[in-house]
Amino acid sequence: MGKNAIVGQSGGPTSVINASLAGVFESCKSRGADIVYGMCNGVAGLLEERVVDLSPLLTDDLDIELLKRTPSSFLGSCRYKLPDWHTDEAVYKKLFAILEKLDIGCFFYIGGNDSMDTIGKLAEYGECIQSDIRFMGVPKTIDNDLMVTDHTPGYGSAAKYIGVVMKEIIRDATVYGTKYVTVVEIMGRNAGWLTAAAALAKSDDCEGVDMICLPEVPFHVEHFIEKVRVMQEKKPSIVIAVSEGVKLEDGRYVCELADDVHAVDAFGHKALTGTARYLANVVARNLDTKTRCIELSTLQRCAGHLTSRTDITEAYQVGGAAVKAAFEGVTGQMVALKRISNSPYQCTTELHPISEVANLEKKVPLSWMNEDHTQMTEDFLAYARPLIQAELTPLYIAGLPHHIYMKPQK
Amino acid sequence: MGKNAIVGQSGGPTSVINASLAGVFESCKSRGADIVYGMCNGVAGLLEERVVDLSPLLTDDLDIELLKRTPSSFLGSCRYKLPDWHTDEAVYKKLFAILEKLDIGCFFYIGGNDSMDTIGKLAEYGECIQSDIRFMGVPKTIDNDLMVTDHTPGYGSAAKYIGVVMKEIIRDATVYGTKYVTVVEIMGRNAGWLTAAAALAKSDDCEGVDMICLPEVPFHVEHFIEKVRVMQEKKPSIVIAVSEGVKLEDGRYVCELADDVHAVDAFGHKALTGTARYLANVVARNLDTKTRCIELSTLQRCAGHLTSRTDITEAYQVGGAAVKAAFEGVTGQMVALKRISNSPYQCTTELHPISEVANLEKKVPLSWMNEDHTQMTEDFLAYARPLIQAELTPLYIAGLPHHIYMKPQK
Repeated sequence: MGKNAIVGQSGGPTSVINASLAGVFESCKSRGADIVYGMCNGVAGLLEERVVDLSPLLTDDLDIELLKRTPSSFLGSCRYKLPDWHTDEAVYKKLFAILEKLDIGCFFYIGGNDSMDTIGKLAEYGECIQSDIRFMGVPKTIDNDLMVTDHTPGYGSAAKYIGVVMKEIIRDATVYGTKYVTVVEIMGRNAGWLTAAAALAKSDDCEGVDMICLPEVPFHVEHFIEKVRVMQEKKPSIVIAVSEGVKLEDGRYVCELADDVHAVDAFGHKALTGTARYLANVVARNLDTKTRCIELSTLQRCAGHLTSRTDITEAYQVGGAAVKAAFEGVTGQMVALKRISNSPYQCTTELHPISEVANLEKKVPLSWMNEDHTQMTEDFLAYARPLIQAELTPLYIAGLPHHIYMKPQK
Repeated sequence: MGKNAIVGQSGGPTSVINASLAGVFESCKSRGADIVYGMCNGVAGLLEERVVDLSPLLTDDLDIELLKRTPSSFLGSCRYKLPDWHTDEAVYKKLFAILEKLDIGCFFYIGGNDSMDTIGKLAEYGECIQSDIRFMGVPKTIDNDLMVTDHTPGYGSAAKYIGVVMKEIIRDATVYGTKYVTVVEIMGRNAGWLTAAAALAKSDDCEGVDMICLPEVPFHVEHFIEKVRVMQEKKPSIVIAVSEGVKLEDGRYVCELADDVHAVDAFGHKALTGTARYLANVVARNLDTKTRCIELSTLQRCAGHLTSRTDITEAYQVGGAAVKAAFEGVTGQMVALKRISNSPYQCTTELHPISEVANLEKKVPLSWMNEDHTQMTEDFLAYARPLIQAELTPLYIAGLPHHIYMKPQK
C-alpha cells in the first residue's frame, strides 16, 4: 500500500466540513501516513495535479482548532462529475497515474451524494485494475439528504442557524403589532430537512413559525393564500418558512411562476431563487397586509460564527472513522452516523457501500408532519433537537472570528 | 414632579435597543421612581393607554441580563408621527391627560431621528402648557445616521454582524476557484454607514470585499460593470457590498430600474429592495460570469446571537444618562455619545437639544473613502473598529439563545 494519503472536499461548503478534514488529517498522521496531501478544488484540481502537503499548513493544535472553526472548504471545492469509466477511461488512467506518482494508499472524499458517486466510480475502477488504493467517502451536506446515515454532518449547524434566526425574525416581525406576513426562503431542492428545522424556533419564549412548506408536499398557491388569511384573523404577524424547492402538483417549481431568468448548474440543476419573493407578492396582492420576504441564502451553509458543537464533533468523528476503515483495508464505502438513543443522545459510526448512497436522496417522512402538512410533529423535533445542542465559540480577534486560510494554489 | 416614569421604544428594532430599556428601567428605580411604565408600541400604544408596569416583568438580575441579550423591541414599536401641535392640539391634550393620570414625571423615548421628532414636539408642547414633565431622547438606530452623536447604539452590533458575515460570505464565494460575482445588499437608505461596515471584514485571514457602493456616491451602472470586469481579470471571485439606497445621478434609486412593485411606509419612505438582484442580473448579462445576490435583510438588525459588547454597554449607558438628566430637570434633549480617544477607546455621554437631531441625517464623509469611492480608508476603520469589539454571549438553552418575552398586551 502507498505510504501517503490524500483528501479532498467537494460540492457545496458547510460550516463544519473542515472539522471532517481535521479528523481525516489527524487520524492519518496518527496511523502513520507519511504525507497527507490535500486536493485543491477536489478531483478537478487533482486532475491538474494541484495538491498540497497538509503538514506545513496544519502545524499545531491551534491550527486544528481554527480549522474546526473555519466555515467553507479549506481546500476549495468543485462540482466535477466523473464520466462513466466504461465509455471514457482516459480520465481514470490519468487520475490513477497521479495517485501512483504521489504514492497514495488511501483516498478520502468529503462530500454529498454527487461526491459519493465519485468515490463509487473510483473504487469500482480501482478494483477493476486491481489497484490497492482504498477509497472512502466522508459524508457532508447541510441538506441532510443522504441515505443510510441517521443525519449528515453539516445539517446540525445549518439547522441550529435556521432555528436561531427564525426565532430572531419572529421577534422582529411582531414589534409593530400590525398585519405583517414574513415569508422566509430556506435551502433544500427536493428534501425539506432545512426548512423543517424552522420548527426548532418554537420554545418557551417563542411562539414558533406559523407555517412550514416542504418540497415533499405539493404546493397550492390558492390554498396557501387562504391559510394565511385564516391565520391572520387570529394574530397579525405571520411568519412562514418555505423551501426554495416547493413545487406545484404539475411538477413546476413555484419560483418558476415568477418572471426571472433561471440558470442551470454543472450538474444540470436549475437555480432556484425567488420563491419567497413570489409568495410574498402574491399574498400582498390578495390580502390586505404588508409582506416581506427573506432569503436565508448562503449564510445557512457558511455561518461559522453559529455552529453546533455536536455537529462539529461528529464531523470530526466521521473523518477519523473513514481513516480507520481505510487503514484496515476497506474501500468503496461511506461512513454513516448511527443513532443509538435520543435520551441521552448517543451516536456512533458504521460503514455502508457507496451504492446505497450515491445519487440517491432521503426525503422528510410526511409522518413527521401534522395532518394538513403545515407543521412538524414532536417526532421530528425529537430527531432534530439533539443535533443543535451546544456551541463551539469562535476565536474572536479584534471583534471578528478568526479563520485558517490557504491562499489559492496556482 | 410626578412620582412615576414612562419609557417607550419606537422605529425599527435593533439588537441592543433593549439594553437601553434596561438602562432606563434600572436607573429610574435606583433614583426613586415609584412605578416605571412601559408604553406598548410606543406613543401609538400610549394614546390607547396600553401601558405596563415594568417591575413585575423585570424582577431580578437574570431578567435584566436576558433583556440585554434579547433583540428587537421588548415593548413593541410603532412608526407613529405626531402632528404639528399648532394645527392639531387634540392628540397632545389626550397624551398629556394620560400622562397626568399615570402621575408621570419623566418620559423617555428610545429611537432614531423620526422618534426624536416626537420628543421634540412633546417637550415643546409641554413647555407651552407649563407641564413639569421632562422629555428625554435615547438614541437608537442601526443606521448610525443621527447628528451630534459620535455613533448610535445599535450601529456597533449591526456593523459587527455585517463584518462577520461578509467574511464568511467571502470564504464561501472563493471555494470553486471559478468566476463568480457576489453582490450583497445592505441596509441604509441615504447614509452608507452599514454598507461601509463591510470594510471591517478585511483582516490577516481575509482579503476583504472588492468594492463598496455607498448611497452618498452617485451610481453609474456602466462604470460599475466595467469595474467588475477589470477586477475579475485579476481574481475570479468578486464580492461587492452595495447599499440598498444607491441612486443614479438623476436621483432615481437603482432598485427602481428593476420591474418590481414598490410600497411606501408610514413615513412616506419608498420600500427599497432588489438593488443587489438587479445588479447581479446586469453583471450576468454583460460579463461572462456567474453571479448571485444576497440581501442581508432583517438579520442585520435582529441578530441577537452576534452583538458587540461595546455596543450593549453603551446602549445601557445612554439609557442611564437620560434618566440622570431628566431627574436633574433636563427636558427636550437627547443623550449623545462623545468619543474621548481611539487608543485606548474611550467614550462618554453628553446632552444635545433635540432640534440638533430630529429629522436630520448624518452621512458618511466621502473623505473616508478612497479616490474612486470604492473602498473605505483607514480613517473609517479607526472609527468603526472600536465599536465592534468584544462579545456578549447569549444564554443558550437547548441549543437556542434564550430571550425575555412580553406577550402582546390587549
